Amino acid sequence: MKIVITGAQGFLGRRLTETLLSRTDINIRKLILIDVVKPVVAQDDPRLQWVQMDLSNPDGLEGLIDGETDAVFHLAAIVSSHAEQDPDLGYAINFLATRNLLEVCRGNNPNIRFIFSSSLAVFGGELPAQIQNHTALTPQSTYGTQKAMCELLINDYSRKGFVDALSVRLPTICIRPGKPNKAASSFVSSIMREPLHQQRAICPVAPELRLWLSSPNTVIDNFIHALTLPSLPQRSWHVINLPGFSISVHHMLEALAAIKGEEILGYIDFEFDAAINDIVASWPAEINCEQALSLGFKADSSFKEVINQFIRCDMRFE
Amino acid sequence: MKIVITGAQGFLGRRLTETLLSRTDINIRKLILIDVVKPVVAQDDPRLQWVQMDLSNPDGLEGLIDGETDAVFHLAAIVSSHAEQDPDLGYAINFLATRNLLEVCRGNNPNIRFIFSSSLAVFGGELPAQIQNHTALTPQSTYGTQKAMCELLINDYSRKGFVDALSVRLPTICIRPGKPNKAASSFVSSIMREPLHQQRAICPVAPELRLWLSSPNTVIDNFIHALTLPSLPQRSWHVINLPGFSISVHHMLEALAAIKGEEILGYIDFEFDAAINDIVASWPAEINCEQALSLGFKADSSFKEVINQFIRCDMRFE
Repeated sequence: MKIVITGAQGFLGRRLTETLLSRTDINIRKLILIDVVKPVVAQDDPRLQWVQMDLSNPDGLEGLIDGETDAVFHLAAIVSSHAEQDPDLGYAINFLATRNLLEVCRGNNPNIRFIFSSSLAVFGGELPAQIQNHTALTPQSTYGTQKAMCELLINDYSRKGFVDALSVRLPTICIRPGKPNKAASSFVSSIMREPLHQQRAICPVAPELRLWLSSPNTVIDNFIHALTLPSLPQRSWHVINLPGFSISVHHMLEALAAIKGEEILGYIDFEFDAAINDIVASWPAEINCEQALSLGFKADSSFKEVINQFIRCDMRFE
Repeated sequence: MKIVITGAQGFLGRRLTETLLSRTDINIRKLILIDVVKPVVAQDDPRLQWVQMDLSNPDGLEGLIDGETDAVFHLAAIVSSHAEQDPDLGYAINFLATRNLLEVCRGNNPNIRFIFSSSLAVFGGELPAQIQNHTALTPQSTYGTQKAMCELLINDYSRKGFVDALSVRLPTICIRPGKPNKAASSFVSSIMREPLHQQRAICPVAPELRLWLSSPNTVIDNFIHALTLPSLPQRSWHVINLPGFSISVHHMLEALAAIKGEEILGYIDFEFDAAINDIVASWPAEINCEQALSLGFKADSSFKEVINQFIRCDMRFE
């Protein structure tokens, strides 16, 4: 397979690259890794091609996506708090760059499986206790708005046969390794990751706030499932709510204490931040993901297992 | 008031212009009438300024929308069947031109009341018997997709205070005077208008098909209500389903025969057209419009009254 990944230097892009290369059931012939930041080449594999480019300028894309390309994972994005502060940059990357990519696929090879990383942030406002497939998208953030616009555009391109696309709505990912970022949800990983490293973390939301989460490994497995899944019927809706689990911040901390002892919670300062709370509280706490499960996407077994997965897989490599 | 109307040479634009000029309760200081087609100046009123421009190129807009502009009615669009055949032109006008207009408002005067003509075509696919406010937008046409993307964008611009906007979703309008156009719904007026003029018309859908309709006069009154309505709270959802009524093609023909006699139905040929039927059948047959009614928008009283309104107001002037 010849695959293009955008946002390839991000956390998900890097993990997807590693996983694709290591999977023996997928024959990777070439991985083209696009990112706006200069590549930090950690792997020396002849199948990798690193490309530094700004997707808001489509020049050069034509030569990277061609008749031999099997799939594009479009992960590049301006994250939630960043897009809220700079909606124009958000629009350029989160929306226009997506359209540029779709146009190149349409022109060069409409059979490309186009996998778009969407988000639960497309939901917002007054939501039902559990989001259903037919729940309206009323995002309360610029990021969610731009993702929702892309889902519509991508669905139309699929319906017209311009591309073979699937938008997958990611739960909030926890526990991300590395550093905090500008996503409003950044604290969700911080309040687990930093204490595990004996570092202080700030919790900017009320402990009662419920979140819809997935572990990184499960999201990556689901991305790869989206790659190998047979095409959906052209006129079906080309958006999947990826499986996740619903948990309150309070229960996340309880699970952490159960594994590492109560004293670990001393690393967390509760400093309420209305701007972050507003964005995160507008996201859904629970999503019906029966459709995704019936299509073979998978969910984490428990939050304790998610913490143990982080300790086992991620802390070793940091 | 200083008001800009795009698509001003279209049927709704012309009727909105006439009505605004004639209403004694609204003090019109200036009406800037933008359209891509050369103006046919029917009215000689010093308050009118005709501008021929293609909205896909925003040059010149800056000078037309300024600190003194009170409102923009954005009616310009590539209609449904046309956008389905030429999605790129649809994208340029239905989406990009909307964004260009929003950007000029944002830059020059964020207090402008921006009224966007959206459509029931944002709905599609498997729909509930009655559309609710929280029903997901899953359009099955390029036109509906582009309108839905604009609604999202406009809502975000409103939420951020870039503009004081309201998207109003129009029912299918019946009876339009004049000639058929490239809208998939063009037949809805044709099967009434042409027989009333002793001309033949084609009905391309099954008589059982139910439609969600509004008369032209009611839509224009609702447009003007959207102009004078107090601003919605910034974080509410800035989209209104305009009131309409649900009726089958069969019952429309029955009402026509009740007014003009059975023999008028002889002017109609039933020639099923799968392409048109597909688009129109994907639209909702009924929409819950309680919110609109509570905000003071109004509905037609009966379809017979709609036919009589056409005979009384429109046939005289053709």
